[in-house]
Amino acid sequence: MSIYVHGIGMTPFGKLEDRTLKDLMLKASFEALNDAGNPEVDAVFVGNFMGGSINNQEILGAIVANDLGLGYIPTAKVEGACASGGIAFRQAVLGIMSGEYETVLVVGVEKMKHVSTLDVTQAINAAMDNDSNEKHAGLTFPGFFGVLANRYFYETDATKEHLAMVALKNRENAINHPLAQFKKPTSIDEIINARLITEPLGLFDCSPTTDGASAIVISKEKSNIKLLASAQASGPTQMQGAEDLLSLPAVRESGRIAYEKAGLGPRDIDVVEIHDCFSITEIISSEELGFFNKREGYKAIEEGKTKPNGEIPINTSGGLLSKGHPIGATGISQLHQIVLQLRGNAPNQVEGARIGLAQNLGGTGSYSTVHILEKV
Amino acid sequence: MSIYVHGIGMTPFGKLEDRTLKDLMLKASFEALNDAGNPEVDAVFVGNFMGGSINNQEILGAIVANDLGLGYIPTAKVEGACASGGIAFRQAVLGIMSGEYETVLVVGVEKMKHVSTLDVTQAINAAMDNDSNEKHAGLTFPGFFGVLANRYFYETDATKEHLAMVALKNRENAINHPLAQFKKPTSIDEIINARLITEPLGLFDCSPTTDGASAIVISKEKSNIKLLASAQASGPTQMQGAEDLLSLPAVRESGRIAYEKAGLGPRDIDVVEIHDCFSITEIISSEELGFFNKREGYKAIEEGKTKPNGEIPINTSGGLLSKGHPIGATGISQLHQIVLQLRGNAPNQVEGARIGLAQNLGGTGSYSTVHILEKV
Repeated sequence: MSIYVHGIGMTPFGKLEDRTLKDLMLKASFEALNDAGNPEVDAVFVGNFMGGSINNQEILGAIVANDLGLGYIPTAKVEGACASGGIAFRQAVLGIMSGEYETVLVVGVEKMKHVSTLDVTQAINAAMDNDSNEKHAGLTFPGFFGVLANRYFYETDATKEHLAMVALKNRENAINHPLAQFKKPTSIDEIINARLITEPLGLFDCSPTTDGASAIVISKEKSNIKLLASAQASGPTQMQGAEDLLSLPAVRESGRIAYEKAGLGPRDIDVVEIHDCFSITEIISSEELGFFNKREGYKAIEEGKTKPNGEIPINTSGGLLSKGHPIGATGISQLHQIVLQLRGNAPNQVEGARIGLAQNLGGTGSYSTVHILEKV
Repeated sequence: MSIYVHGIGMTPFGKLEDRTLKDLMLKASFEALNDAGNPEVDAVFVGNFMGGSINNQEILGAIVANDLGLGYIPTAKVEGACASGGIAFRQAVLGIMSGEYETVLVVGVEKMKHVSTLDVTQAINAAMDNDSNEKHAGLTFPGFFGVLANRYFYETDATKEHLAMVALKNRENAINHPLAQFKKPTSIDEIINARLITEPLGLFDCSPTTDGASAIVISKEKSNIKLLASAQASGPTQMQGAEDLLSLPAVRESGRIAYEKAGLGPRDIDVVEIHDCFSITEIISSEELGFFNKREGYKAIEEGKTKPNGEIPINTSGGLLSKGHPIGATGISQLHQIVLQLRGNAPNQVEGARIGLAQNLGGTGSYSTVHILEKV
């Protein structure tokens, strides 16, 4: 069975003080449904991480169905940390493949900017295993990925400058994205000299907290954007479970399965969204997805291969680093950008893009989804 | 395609001070996998509501896969308030129907007893719509269902004594359940005279807070317990959206769809688990599921029809009221009891039970799932 994309929607990403979690979720959903020509919807899946912890609002699926008048249809929220959006999308795909649903709305949403940095950091830490040494030792997410960056520097000739090139590329892409959170021009110097968050990651190496939502409507009815593959894998939930510090097996596995399903390899992909929660994560995941050899991703950055006009454009949306990272929305907003690319009207449009890939990561490597879309 | 139950597991329900959320989840999962003969598992779904809000622990799916050595398989947590377990089970069913998975582990879990009553009440209130008048007015869940009970009394000849008969029946059932939370004998008098929680609901009319987990393994491979139907519906998230105060359309719709899929009616069901978050909810839902006429469920209680030896035994496990209600685990523990009934070795075994139904409710009527199982 084939599955197609019929509509997409997205709110601005940023600090949206006058909007509730529900407002954002409904706005993106409404837009996606309109874009799809307001079809009858058989189910709703919501990707969200912190509705319970910092918004005191769960039952999001039922709220969408009620407030948009979709009827008494099945709905659910899906949580997989920062991969909540990608995993919610996959449940919609499985629902259609099962024959139970024809058309499904998926919306990802997060509202994070209304609480203190301490409170949001605490809430995000629920995406680490409470039994892990790193959580006991007080490592937060920048701390964890900072360890990976240091190890990457140790095993390769990469430096902070390579990380900065990732951050700069993504910022330059975000400048052209009307809904992105950060659109102020910057420079390698400013990025390298910015406030350290955790050695060696500076402010620009870390994705921000963000309010926002993104939605997508898929159906077994034909359209000109076809889903070629949906894949998901899990990985170690603790640093001590890693094969080596520069591996993200969930990313590698989800990529491998997706390529196999699509009958394609990394060379066939025209445009990519990678989960760049930190600059180092984009580099490691670009290797795990087979775009570059292991421990050589930093060279590709140096050579400009991942820019919109490069060999394999990565994060033309601005990525999590500059488009923003409303946790539950991120996986859907990646698909949003890939759909725009295949439709030919994306920010930083890649000439002739026909096949796009979106990879969404959860936790410190606990989850990864990969979806491949094709213009038909 | 047919789907079958291969294994079940369940921890004791109650106040389990020396167990973490993770301990409970792994224990029930381990038991279900053992009961199933330790098959290869293709995916894990976790039903859970408050991991993020009061345990600072999400990524539960990945934790199960890692800690039980199941490999880098796809996993996710599913949230639908108190129906989280039933909805997680349904995602597993859809996953198998889709052809992506052959065998799936579903585990429901909640750890609630370690925080104050105020904190747990606040966390539970995330299952109400923040925009609802009732939440603004300060109604908690007992307040909401108390309104329904008063209305039921107004429209029928039912009294507090009928509610007490539900609570007494379920307590008497729980006494025979080795894993139930409340096993102390009681009486109609004690129940009626117990401390009021919210008029007219007393202490025994309200389900407790509970720690616990329950798990189930399903597969497309044959066993002697077959899934006849999986159905889910949503309903109004706000009181003002109700058709009338004595309706739970999500329950009615999910029941209707399940009967249609199974090719059965209420008269064909031998044993039932109904989501009795409050005594009044069991009565209203027993009507919505077609076991009794609307506004006549209370008469059935009076006549003993829902006792284990009655016409249509309801909540032979003790129900949420006395078996306990670890939110995310409840939907799975209902299936646990139905499976025991069909295997012929349940607490309060119903003679010759061949077809069983489990109904799981979320929010103030926002979600309902109905699953029907058959002994083959």
